[in-house]
Order: sequence, then structure tokens, then C-alpha cells
Amino acid sequence: MAFDKFSDKCAVAGVYGNHEAANLVYLCLYALQHRGQQGTGMAVYDGKKINSYKSFGLVADVYNKKRLKKLPGKLAIGHNRYPTDGNYSPGNIQPIVAELPIGQIAVAYNGNFMNTYKIREELMKDGAIFSTETDLEPFLHLISRRLKSTDINTAIIESVKELSGAFAIVVVVEDSLIGIRDPNGVKPLALGKMKDAYVLVSETVALDLIGAKFVREIEPGEMIIIDATGIRSVYPFDKGFKPAPCVFEHVYFARPDSFLYGQDVYDVRKSFGKILAREAPVDADIVIPVPDSGITATIGYAEESGIQFQMGLIRNHYVGRTFIEPSQSIRDFGVKVKLNPVKSIINGKRVIVVDDSIVRGTTSKKIVHMLRDAGATEVHVRVSSPPTKNPCYYGIDTPSRKELISNTHTDEEIRKFIGADSLSFLSLEGMISVLASDDYCTACFTGKYPIDPTLLKRDDI
Amino acid sequence: MAFDKFSDKCAVAGVYGNHEAANLVYLCLYALQHRGQQGTGMAVYDGKKINSYKSFGLVADVYNKKRLKKLPGKLAIGHNRYPTDGNYSPGNIQPIVAELPIGQIAVAYNGNFMNTYKIREELMKDGAIFSTETDLEPFLHLISRRLKSTDINTAIIESVKELSGAFAIVVVVEDSLIGIRDPNGVKPLALGKMKDAYVLVSETVALDLIGAKFVREIEPGEMIIIDATGIRSVYPFDKGFKPAPCVFEHVYFARPDSFLYGQDVYDVRKSFGKILAREAPVDADIVIPVPDSGITATIGYAEESGIQFQMGLIRNHYVGRTFIEPSQSIRDFGVKVKLNPVKSIINGKRVIVVDDSIVRGTTSKKIVHMLRDAGATEVHVRVSSPPTKNPCYYGIDTPSRKELISNTHTDEEIRKFIGADSLSFLSLEGMISVLASDDYCTACFTGKYPIDPTLLKRDDI
Amino acid sequence: MAFDKFSDKCAVAGVYGNHEAANLVYLCLYALQHRGQQGTGMAVYDGKKINSYKSFGLVADVYNKKRLKKLPGKLAIGHNRYPTDGNYSPGNIQPIVAELPIGQIAVAYNGNFMNTYKIREELMKDGAIFSTETDLEPFLHLISRRLKSTDINTAIIESVKELSGAFAIVVVVEDSLIGIRDPNGVKPLALGKMKDAYVLVSETVALDLIGAKFVREIEPGEMIIIDATGIRSVYPFDKGFKPAPCVFEHVYFARPDSFLYGQDVYDVRKSFGKILAREAPVDADIVIPVPDSGITATIGYAEESGIQFQMGLIRNHYVGRTFIEPSQSIRDFGVKVKLNPVKSIINGKRVIVVDDSIVRGTTSKKIVHMLRDAGATEVHVRVSSPPTKNPCYYGIDTPSRKELISNTHTDEEIRKFIGADSLSFLSLEGMISVLASDDYCTACFTGKYPIDPTLLKRDDI
Amino acid sequence: MAFDKFSDKCAVAGVYGNHEAANLVYLCLYALQHRGQQGTGMAVYDGKKINSYKSFGLVADVYNKKRLKKLPGKLAIGHNRYPTDGNYSPGNIQPIVAELPIGQIAVAYNGNFMNTYKIREELMKDGAIFSTETDLEPFLHLISRRLKSTDINTAIIESVKELSGAFAIVVVVEDSLIGIRDPNGVKPLALGKMKDAYVLVSETVALDLIGAKFVREIEPGEMIIIDATGIRSVYPFDKGFKPAPCVFEHVYFARPDSFLYGQDVYDVRKSFGKILAREAPVDADIVIPVPDSGITATIGYAEESGIQFQMGLIRNHYVGRTFIEPSQSIRDFGVKVKLNPVKSIINGKRVIVVDDSIVRGTTSKKIVHMLRDAGATEVHVRVSSPPTKNPCYYGIDTPSRKELISNTHTDEEIRKFIGADSLSFLSLEGMISVLASDDYCTACFTGKYPIDPTLLKRDDI
Repeated sequence: MAFDKFSDKCAVAGVYGNHEAANLVYLCLYALQHRGQQGTGMAVYDGKKINSYKSFGLVADVYNKKRLKKLPGKLAIGHNRYPTDGNYSPGNIQPIVAELPIGQIAVAYNGNFMNTYKIREELMKDGAIFSTETDLEPFLHLISRRLKSTDINTAIIESVKELSGAFAIVVVVEDSLIGIRDPNGVKPLALGKMKDAYVLVSETVALDLIGAKFVREIEPGEMIIIDATGIRSVYPFDKGFKPAPCVFEHVYFARPDSFLYGQDVYDVRKSFGKILAREAPVDADIVIPVPDSGITATIGYAEESGIQFQMGLIRNHYVGRTFIEPSQSIRDFGVKVKLNPVKSIINGKRVIVVDDSIVRGTTSKKIVHMLRDAGATEVHVRVSSPPTKNPCYYGIDTPSRKELISNTHTDEEIRKFIGADSLSFLSLEGMISVLASDDYCTACFTGKYPIDPTLLKRDDI
Repeated sequence: MAFDKFSDKCAVAGVYGNHEAANLVYLCLYALQHRGQQGTGMAVYDGKKINSYKSFGLVADVYNKKRLKKLPGKLAIGHNRYPTDGNYSPGNIQPIVAELPIGQIAVAYNGNFMNTYKIREELMKDGAIFSTETDLEPFLHLISRRLKSTDINTAIIESVKELSGAFAIVVVVEDSLIGIRDPNGVKPLALGKMKDAYVLVSETVALDLIGAKFVREIEPGEMIIIDATGIRSVYPFDKGFKPAPCVFEHVYFARPDSFLYGQDVYDVRKSFGKILAREAPVDADIVIPVPDSGITATIGYAEESGIQFQMGLIRNHYVGRTFIEPSQSIRDFGVKVKLNPVKSIINGKRVIVVDDSIVRGTTSKKIVHMLRDAGATEVHVRVSSPPTKNPCYYGIDTPSRKELISNTHTDEEIRKFIGADSLSFLSLEGMISVLASDDYCTACFTGKYPIDPTLLKRDDI
Repeated sequence: MAFDKFSDKCAVAGVYGNHEAANLVYLCLYALQHRGQQGTGMAVYDGKKINSYKSFGLVADVYNKKRLKKLPGKLAIGHNRYPTDGNYSPGNIQPIVAELPIGQIAVAYNGNFMNTYKIREELMKDGAIFSTETDLEPFLHLISRRLKSTDINTAIIESVKELSGAFAIVVVVEDSLIGIRDPNGVKPLALGKMKDAYVLVSETVALDLIGAKFVREIEPGEMIIIDATGIRSVYPFDKGFKPAPCVFEHVYFARPDSFLYGQDVYDVRKSFGKILAREAPVDADIVIPVPDSGITATIGYAEESGIQFQMGLIRNHYVGRTFIEPSQSIRDFGVKVKLNPVKSIINGKRVIVVDDSIVRGTTSKKIVHMLRDAGATEVHVRVSSPPTKNPCYYGIDTPSRKELISNTHTDEEIRKFIGADSLSFLSLEGMISVLASDDYCTACFTGKYPIDPTLLKRDDI
Repeated sequence: MAFDKFSDKCAVAGVYGNHEAANLVYLCLYALQHRGQQGTGMAVYDGKKINSYKSFGLVADVYNKKRLKKLPGKLAIGHNRYPTDGNYSPGNIQPIVAELPIGQIAVAYNGNFMNTYKIREELMKDGAIFSTETDLEPFLHLISRRLKSTDINTAIIESVKELSGAFAIVVVVEDSLIGIRDPNGVKPLALGKMKDAYVLVSETVALDLIGAKFVREIEPGEMIIIDATGIRSVYPFDKGFKPAPCVFEHVYFARPDSFLYGQDVYDVRKSFGKILAREAPVDADIVIPVPDSGITATIGYAEESGIQFQMGLIRNHYVGRTFIEPSQSIRDFGVKVKLNPVKSIINGKRVIVVDDSIVRGTTSKKIVHMLRDAGATEVHVRVSSPPTKNPCYYGIDTPSRKELISNTHTDEEIRKFIGADSLSFLSLEGMISVLASDDYCTACFTGKYPIDPTLLKRDDI
């Protein structure tokens, strides 16, 4: 009963130089819970070996005092995993720990390595075996093979160059913490500082929780190495990659209190709402968000339009995995277990409802219906991003191209389908006008993929 | 790590006349989850006997398809229990099922029977045994003893008259569903209809989820009997009781999308914010809520004052039971795991922050501190209810009188303690002016208790 | 996949006067595990109140150090429960703890109160309520009602007189441990001493484990009261009850290392085998037991006959609850998961196989078949008790009368059914000749019930 | 609270050609539970891929209908793991599944690869990574590397040649089931047939349970390949290896109903008892076993000596992992929770007690003591194997050399330590005289190791 949204696939975190590294990584992962709820894992170097713990479940449930005590050390990385169906093998939860000739290594990443199929094949031809399905295993093989002739940092640098895709990697090896961001910078990765300790996180909200100071974002294509000698950067990738950070982080994935790609998410998202109000005004009594992701843009819409902001839909915060509907089915049940309209606010009003995106359109349809049931005389849907017409191949869980309603239907057809009086999306230009740079990946809206999707050997591309 | 709030203790629900009664009660309890998260139970009459299931945990976790299938029947009641420390005996989760000469009975309630200590003592002198610590057991004894000479409905009527306190009771006995509201009407209870079925619930939001139509609230002192012959009411209690519904339901307990004591909670709560803006204006750049409970009043404050509404504090929705803080303690940790300020919104601004109530003041202090850390140049705290100076004895979990900061400190002292630039509470008159009636229990603000607290044999009263 | 046996229903234990009472009761219950494997519970008086813990599962799994620590005190009782289908309500696990005007009471029993149905009815007419299905609750009501006019010991004495049936009761109340054995002495109960502490147990093996000295068996109809003033006995029941201890304890229920009704079980059981050898000799090469319950009688048979004793069937000690048979069914699967023949011992031999009893005959049939498959040239079945023709109504789980193969078939018909070359049961006279007294309950063999079964309001009697 | 025994470390099973292969392997593993109780795993080839399930726990608890249904296919292998302390990582439970260029492979083994340390080191130097601690991973690497230039069977043949040690391996790869026994044949492996299906098992008892026919034992050094073309054998190892099956299988490890190294275990074990009676006669009233492992030898001793066999010690069958002893410690507690003497049998008797082996002597001491407490006038200990003076390095859990009481003490010193009136061990010659061959590994008795223990890079050799 997931909402009709794109879903991010992971979060990473790493801490160097604090003797409670596990505890800090745990708090970072907790703050990044919105990026992955299926499972979580941590690997901590105690000066001699790497201890790790992984499990399915939420961060606040998986870890406890006793478990964190068994993960001593000043150097740790962690990972949250997004719930994709099917693969419930605990072996696939990250970080992955392996033994190299120089000692143990632990690795975790957010994103998608797009050419590992090929690398895997070549390695197997050369005698490698694979014991998990994670795409990290080929990466580790590449590193290990290079260790015959070079040191670990060079081995990592040369190996990561072979990877195509969108990724933010964190590594623990030989008393150092390493962070790597893909050459297009599709996936975010930020650096923080907390006294003498360094912290790497997918989003800055994690720094806020532990009281770490935000230092800067890791640059596209940068590999940062943090060890006893300090902090230094190398740039493993060839020149010629254009920055292409994921614009959908600003639309929906990131928390509004994060700072991303040089801008505050709250500000960007509110400005999306303002531009939307200018591009698609409509005479109405109130403007309400689809909570919680639509709130910030709605505030912008209200400010710009002068129309009253109201919390016309109340979100249920105790949503569990599945709900048992009676056999005499309840109208709009799937949405009702998550949202309930405030009748006294809606009744007799012309309502604008603001959502951040429409994927399949099914949820929007139920929301419009529910608002009319609550007495809305008009329902105008405003979407604070352009129509999502294309799937993402960079580690985001999107439906197939055919299931994306904007791919197969005109805006007017969608309006009819969801039963709204009017429907407008933010324009691409409007969206970009808010951003500090136009070097964004906008493939889900425009189909312009910065990394060739056909690298994935998949039938549906 | 509970927030600094009063806590409601329970929710009840009952369904008569739908062959999926268990499923409907389950959905009602889910919608009422905010009123009790420790445990939940259900008792369903299958035409011959009452089957029940109870467990600690959230509604969405406790029940599943398999368990609901084992609870067939058209007549069911259910209960959510609030997490009070200590008493983790599953025998104390409601509903309580017992065997009477006329067959089985199941009972659940929200509230507090204040004189059961005395009744218990008298019953034991008369040879009764008690196998649980719930206050429902004395009530069942009273009923059972009367059955020697009278029918079940009369026995219930006469027994409930012996109970003093604040309560909403639901009963399943002999193919009938009974609902009873205390003579002062302190606790809420509402009636809904869904085709041929009747539904009793603590709050109307439960009716919304299952698509039932709200019929009316049960009156103070009313006992409603729903059976094959239809629906009828009796009034067991003596005249002379004055209505005294709990005003804190409007302040904080009830969901904003509920309808309560003849008014929409959202409207009342927003009006609290408007009056507050009138009573305690302040020159500021933005007004932000302590989410989620403060949102509605903040919208009112913003509307009335014309000051920009912003979501300056973002709530973490994955809060678990306990958090492990590193030994080098993190500033404002207890609040940070729940709330994070949006720096770009707060920084350099004069901020009004609206909360629904202040109990001990500890959380408010951390919030003010956190906002200043985020760059607020001024922080003005506005509370959308009067100072809470007195404990509640009617089934609400409040700290002792001495722990209530407004009992021991002046507003100015509290302001200093929490570090705000200014602090104002809604006035009692302002609060009452919004309400449709002035017959409310306002004891937590005024100390005027409609039911004598000394009935409780407790040392601290 | 239970074996074809009668099943005992419970064990009780009690300790007075040792500050590790819970730990000692736990070990007693562990030694009595063979008398009940569904669940176990314990109630311990800490000088002020009774703390208890109950759960489904084996003794070694249910209790642990942490749980025992939460049960401090010098006075404790405990109970093991036999797995009867269906009633999995934890409220029905004993001991039952209740509150009386004089304080708390905890009670557990082994056996069957046969007239509680009637007592329950009368109590309910008089206004009592029942919150569990255990037969102990009516007993507690009787006690409580008497407390209006008398002290606790008198109340127990007068209440227990009202109970008909077979029972061994242990009680904790007001700093005393009480043990009561039914007036016919159907159920066993023994007294032990361990330094200053007294111990009550269903079987003496429990005394062996904790190193307590066996003092004596509680007499039929005796109520023993152990408190600070020492140990004393009263005899609540009317004269005229004839002793009738359960002979099946010697046949199968009790462990062979127990001492029961004035005799060592091992000796009695071995003598059963000897008499059987005299009554039903047969020319054969080896005599083997159905392990483990048939071992002792087989040793007797071998000694008397001079035929070689062999362990021709090996028992699997890791038997779990259910086994998944392939759809192409395996011959004698149900028995094979428990027993495997030793081919080198069986092959080419004339085999006598000794079992303690035959209930439905289905297991015997499979064993005979399995032995023939292993190469036995002849299979002679010898049963070390008379044919079981009648159900037990005294707290033993027996199939209905019609399912008892000896009730509906002659010995010759049974021989044919199980496929043996010969079949003989121990004669009633032979059995009794071994026992120190002929005042035994032999109802399952003879139909002579010492307590009227029709007291039970059941259709099948 | 393990008994004072050597412990076997594993069992393997494999099925080819039955569409309920998982179910059959499950039953085989259940019958082999005595060879490993820590965990169990299974890998089943469904024609396209290998599905697997592993978990800590007993076979009867780990698998259920639902889980077996998720393991479809006609080709399966399984494994039971012995509980060694410490390594509770689920990744180390077998079978191990890996991906090779030719597809997936699953492997499990019983025994010890003694030179994998060295192989591991070399492979890592060559760029391999290791993600588990099992010794199977190096084996898989060896295979994978060879696949560059040859087919899978040749790769396995050449790789297994590189392994030194004692092992029985089962493999699923490319629609074939492979079994390999080490060149000395230290570990057992047997072949069975069930209609068209073939079965490989560590012990023949597993064949009995599923109704498979025993075909033959796999020979030392034999690699058997079962696939669609039938069954064929290859012999990968160099000539010059001498057979050296583990004699301790006959002494203690194997179930008495198994057939092993050409002989019935029951017969061998009983003959050990007979020879012992001849070698070390003593005048006594009864001879009793330490159950269950001592029963068969005791029967032999009784037959040969003419002294009465009795079950003088009763074993508790509900033994759990740990027991909580009261702080006032109980005499012989550690043994009492497992064994209880039958006083009526022991009292006033001269007792011979037969055990299969003495490792540390601590349990024997308690048993002797317990028998004297039960009234034995004399206690004579007879051991049905020679003194165990040397540790095993072939996958058996033995204490260090210094902890083996027979290594550091004379028989007379041991007799004094355990407090027996006399003590005798079976002679080496006596033991060998019973066996069909003298090509056995008797290293634990003689110190003559057929495989060089120093291959293990361990300090204690």
C-alpha cells in the first residue's frame, strides 16, 4: 500500500575519528530513515578487525545498546536499504565485508552500478566466484586483483574508474574512511565535522542530529580519503563527465530541512510552489497540501497566490505494512488509511490541492474523490514538478515507462482520469529557474539520460 | 523519550450488525491509535460465544488476516491501551471477558472509575475474588450479583450507577452492544451508522475510515442499547450531574479531523490560535508550529496576525521507543530525534513558535534553544491553551502537581526558564469564547474538578 | 504425531522455607517435564505479594536467570501443563493467582475437579463472575465466600470438601504452603525435606534432582499445612472414601526412578514384565522393548524367560512437533520418525517386543510391520498391562471408549489387526499380585470407577 | 553443560532424481541430527537456479511445510552443523552457494580441510576476495579458476586433489549430484537408492527413515557423479593413501542402528562390551549403562559375564541448553539434570557401570559419586574403548591434549580421581579384534595420525 511515488533506494553514512563511531552512524542512519526502510547495517573497525551487524527492519528497531557495544571503534560506515520486493536475503544487506590480502574491507553504496553485469561476467571467466547478488562484490574483486601489483588506494581508484553509473560509496579499509561520488554527481554525499571527527552522509539532516557541522558537499567524481594523516581528495574519473545531480532529490526525496547541491531544499521546494502559483493560478478558497511531502510547495503556492493555506488532509502516523479491508470494500480505502479530510475545512470550498508529483495517478484520483465527498465544490490539482514521463535507471524505484500516466496520457486525459476540475504541472523551465544551476539530471521529466541506460542489460530499456 | 504532553489513556470502539465486525473494529482502533499505543484487544460474539484476542503493540502490528478470521461474528468491541509504565500483564489489556449466569460478557472502557477501590473492598468482604487489576472486574461483580434478582440490562443500569468517575464504556452481552457515557460526559463517545450496522467510537475519525456516517454523540449519562429490536436509550444516573466534557480533547487529545462536543476540532483549535494572536500579538517575521499538534493553532495565528506561516521545524516520522545517545552528549538530543529546524527558514528571523500546551517546560526549553542555534534573532513562544496548573484524575496521564511548571512558576519565570524572548498563554476566557458551551471540565487549568478527586484513595491528592 | 499412549495431564511442585524457592521449583518442574509439556507457570511469595510467571513451552525454555530473579521469596509453587488441543489461552496456565480479603492466594493442581460445573452454576446464580476456564476459579470462589465468617485454613478445608474428583493441589496463601490430596488418593503427592525447607512434588524424581530427602507421601484425603510454626496435617474429607491410587502411574505415567504408593516404580514395572513372561511365555531368540517406556518391563521379561534382551528399536531423541512427509508416502512413517529397527539384531530372529500398553493399536501395527521388514521371522507382542477398555475421567487424556481397541476387539482380533504372530496382555490378577495393596483405581482396565464419572456433565459418559 | 564426550562436527545428505528432493533431504538431516545440532541448511536446484535456506536450530524446528515448498526441484543437498562456540554468523552455515561462469554451485561437507589456510593465502595474493570464514570458499575459488581452461567435473577433480584432510563432500552443480570421500576415508559417506532416485548420506540411518535401500559405502578417495546419464565414479587422488576410517564412529559417533565400514555398529559396539567383559571381569550384582551411548556395550558385557543388565541410570529427555543452579549448590548437579539413579536397583548392590569413553573424567566422577549416594556398595567403571590420549584434528571437537585425563594420568590415577573401586578400559587389541579391518584411524588412542596434523597452522599441535 505504498503511495504513488518514486522511491529512493538507500542512504549511506560514515564516521572517522570518534570512539563512539557506531553510535554516531546509528543516529545518522536514523535521520536518513526516509531513504530506506527495509533493512540497515553497520560495519565498524576496532583497530584490528571489522565487526558488523545487519538486519531487516527500521534503524530504531534494529540497533540497541547491547548491539552497539559489540561494535567498538572510531571508524564506521552504515547503510539503509530501500524495500524492494523479493530479495529478502540478509546477505544482500550492506555494508559488505570481505577479506583482502591487506586485511578486511567494508563497503556500502547508494545508487546503481550499471555495468557490473559485464564486469561480473568477465571476472567469472577469469575464475572469480560470487557469493552474493550485490553489485559491490564485482567492485571488491576488481580491487583485490589490483592489489597484486599496487597499494589499496590506487587499487580503489583504478577499480572505481571501471564502474559506470550513479553512486555514493563509503569504504572502511586499513584505518581509513573513503567516500566516492559518481563522476556525474547524480547521488548526493556531504561532509561534516564534529570536533576531531569527520562524517560522511547522504543528506545534511544527519549532521544536524548529531550536532556535526556541515563542511561541504563531496564534488561529482571526487574520492575523499580520511585517515590519520588528515583529509585529502583525488579524482579517479576521466574528464568529460558533466555534472548531473538528481533534480528529484529537490522535488521529493530529500528532507525539506536538508541542504543539497548548494541550495536549501525547503527554499527550492517552496519556490516550486510559488512559480506554480504564477504559472497555474486558479480562483479558490483554500490551498491544501498532500501531506507531508506537499506541505512546503503548498506554503509557497499560498504565499504567492494569497489563498489561505489549510491542513485539509490529516495524515495518519501509525501506518503499518498492510491493512485488511473488509470484503464489502470501503471507498478510497487505500488512501483513507493514510489520509483523512477535515470536513469543516473542505465543505463548501473551492479547493486547490498541491502534490509534489504524480506517478500512476491512482492516489490522486482517490484524493480528489475524497475531497469531493468531504464537500469540496471544486478541486484543482497542482503538481510542483513537471510530468514524470520516463523511468529512472540510477537506483530509483520507478514503475515501468507504460505505467507512468504522464507517459501515456495528456494532461487533460489525466485530469479526467483523476476527476479534477483543473490540473497543472510545474513547467520544466519553471523548475529549472529555481535551481542554482541547470546542470541537473532531469531524465524522468525530459528523457535526457546523462548516463546511457542501455549499459544495463535489461529488456525494458 | 515522550514529549512533554498530557497523555490520553484509551480508545474504545464497538460494531453491531455487520458480519465483518472484527475487521471494522480493527480499522476503528487503527484510526484511534493516537489515543493508546501500548496494547490493543478485541472481543467478538459469534452467536454462541465470545472470542477475543489481545496483545501489546500497535493495532497494525497486533492484528492480521489470520487472527481476524478467528474472530467471526456481527458484534464486536475493541480497545486501545495507553502505555503506562510497569503494568505489563497481558491480563490487564481490555476488553475483559467474563462468564455470567446468563452467558458471557465483554467490557472495555476509556477513563477512570474513581471509587472502585471502595467497591472492591466491599465485594471482597462479601466473598468475591479478583483475578486482574483492572477496574472493570468490580463492575462485572456488581452486575453479576444483581443478576440473581433481575435481568442483564437492569443489572448493568443499577451497577453503573454505583460507579463514580469519567468513562466511556462499551459492552457486548446477550447479542447486544451497549455504550455508556459518564454522567458528566467527561469522556467522548460517538454513534455512527454503516448500512444496517451501528458503530460506537471514541472519536469520529474512526467513522471516516470505515465509511460510516456520523449520527450523533452519546449524551452525558446516556446508556445506549443496540440489539435486534433496534436502538434505544436509558439514563441510569441521577439527575443533578452537570455536563463537563474534557476541554483538553479540543486542545490536544483529539485528532484535528474529529468532530467533538458539537464542534469541529480543527475549527476550535484554529480559533484558539486566532484568539491567541489577538491576545498576544508580537512583531515577527514568521510563525511556526511545534508539529504536528501545534499546526492547526498556528494556521489560526498566522491568519489572524498576517505573519507568514512556515514549517520551521520538521518532524521525524520514524521515532521509536528509545534512542542511544553517545556518552559525549549531543545538545538538545531529546528533541532533535523528533524535530529538526529548517535553518534557511529560521536564520536571521524573528520567530513565533506555537505549541498547544506546556507541561514541564523541558521540551519548550530545548526547542527555543534549537531555534536560536538555527539563527533565530528572536523567539516568541505562544501556547494555544491556558497554563496547566493541576493534574487530571480522570484517566489522563499527567505529572504530579509539583512537576507542572505553571503550578510552581509564574509565566515570566517560565519564559526565563525556556529562554524565550516572550511567552504567552491563551487566556481561559479566550479559550471558552471559542467553545459552543461553557459547561466544560477545565480542571487542569482552573482546579475546578467536576468529580471529587478524593474518591481516589491516593496520597498525592 | 503423538504415540499411542494415555497422557498424564499435569505436575505440581511447591517449596517452603528456602530463599531460592523459585529456582528449586523450576528444577522440580524440569524433573517432572514428562507429566506436561504444553506450558508451565510459577507463583512465588516475596513476603508482601505473589509474583508469577507463566508461558507456553518447556520448562528449560520458559524460565531463565533473569525471570527467576524477578521471582524472589522463600515460598513458591509451580505447575506443568499437558498439551491438550485447542485451549491456548495463557490465562489458563496455572498457578492461578487471585486477591482475597486476607491477601493474595496462588493455587495449582493436577487432576480433575468433577463437579465444578455444578458449583460454577450455583456460584453464578449467586452473583459470581468467572474470568478463566480453569476449574480452580470455582474453588477460589468457595474459599472467598467462606472468608466472610471464618479464617483461611478453615475456608480451604470447608471448600475442598465440596470438590469431587481426583486431585493433588498446592496452595500459597498467607506465608504458608498447603498441599491437598484427593480423598481417594488417585493423584500422587510426595513430601521432601532439604535442610530447613519443605518440598511438595508430584513424583519423587523431583526431590532427587534438587538433593532433597524423600520424607513420605501425602495420604489420600490429607491436607498438609507448612508454615512458620512447622508442619501439620488435617483431614478435610468425610470418612468412607476408599483409597484408589491410579495404577497407570505404575504402568506408564511415572518415571521408573520414582517411588510411588509405597513401591519403587522400576521394581513394579520390572515385576510386571516377569509375571508377563510367566503368564505368556513364547519360544523366541530375543526380547526387545518399545523404548523408552517398555524398557523396564522388558528387562523383567528377559530375566524371567532367559531370553536375550536387546535394544532392537532405537529411539530418535530429537522428535519435534510435526513432520512433513513427502507426498509419495513412506511406509510406517509415523513410527519411523521416532523409532528405527536395528536390522543386524532383528534379521532372522524370532522377536518378542514388549510395550507397556496398547491404546488404539495403530502404533503397534506399524512396529510389527517394521520389525518384519527388518527381517524378523516371528513377532510376538507382549503388553505389560491388561487391555485398556475404558476411558479415564480423572484428568488423563484418553481417547473415547470406541477408539480403545481393547474395548471393541478381542485380543485375537487385535493380534490380527497389528499383524503379530502372538499377542498377550498382562492379566489383572498378575498386575495386582505385584502391588503392595489391591486398593488401586483400575477403572481403565475394569470399568470400576471409584468416583462417579457422571458427575461430569458430558455426553460421552 | 555438555557431557564429557568427543563431538562430531557435521552431517551431509544429498538427493538426486526425486521431485520432493528437499523433503527427503530434510528427513535425512532429521535422522542425522545427532551429528550436529547448532544449525542446518539446504540447497535445492529447481532446474534453473539453486534456492537455499539455512538457519540456526534443530532440523525439526528450522524447516516447515512453507519453507520446503519454496525449495522445489529434484536435486538437493543438506547439512547439519555441530555447535562450536563463537562463530554464530549465519553466513557460515552450509551449504555454501556461489556463482560460477557455468552457473551456480552448492557445496557442503563434513570434516576438516587442513591446508586451506595456505590455499587461502595464495589465492588472496592472486587477487581473490573472501566473504565467509568457511573452508569451502577456497575450494570454490580453486574450482572457478580452473574453469577458465576446463569443464566443471575436471575442475572439481583437480581442485579436490589440492585439499588435504578428512572430508565427505556433497555438491550440486549443473544438474548433477556429486559426492566425494577423502582419500583416507576418514569420514563416512553412503549411497542409497529409492526408486529412481539416488541418496548420499553420512550414515545409513537416514536411508532407513526415508525407506531408501542401502546400496554401498562410497570408497575412500572416490568421487561419485550422479546425473541424467546415470552414476559413475572417478578417483581424483594419487595412489598411496592408506584407508583410515575413524574408529570413534563405531565407539560413539554413529547411531547403533547404522551400518558403517562394512559392519553393523550395534554388533561392533556389543562386541566391544563382550571383549571388555573378558578382559576386565569383576564380581558384581548388576551391570548398568551410562545411557544412551553406553547401552549397547553394556548389553554385550552382560551377555558375556552373565551379570544382570539393569537400567540403573534414567536419562532425562528434556535437557535444554543451560540450567540455573541455586547458589547453594546441589551435589553432582551437572550430571543430575541429565541422569538419575534408580535407588531400588542400586541400593546394596555391587555395580558395574559401562561408558563408551572417558574424556576429562569429570562426568565419570559425578556418576560414581551419585551411584554411591544411591547405595552402591561397590562401583566398577568399565570403558568400552581404549584411553583417549590424543586430540583429533579431523573435524572432531576434542579438548586439548592436556585436558585429556588419559594423557596426563595413569589408569590407577584416574580410578582414584573418579572414586571407583576398579576401572578398566578396552584394550587396543581387543577393540581391533572386533573390526573387520585393521586399517582404522586410531589416532585418539595411539597418536598415529594418518594425515599430518601440522598441516594446520595451529600453535597447539
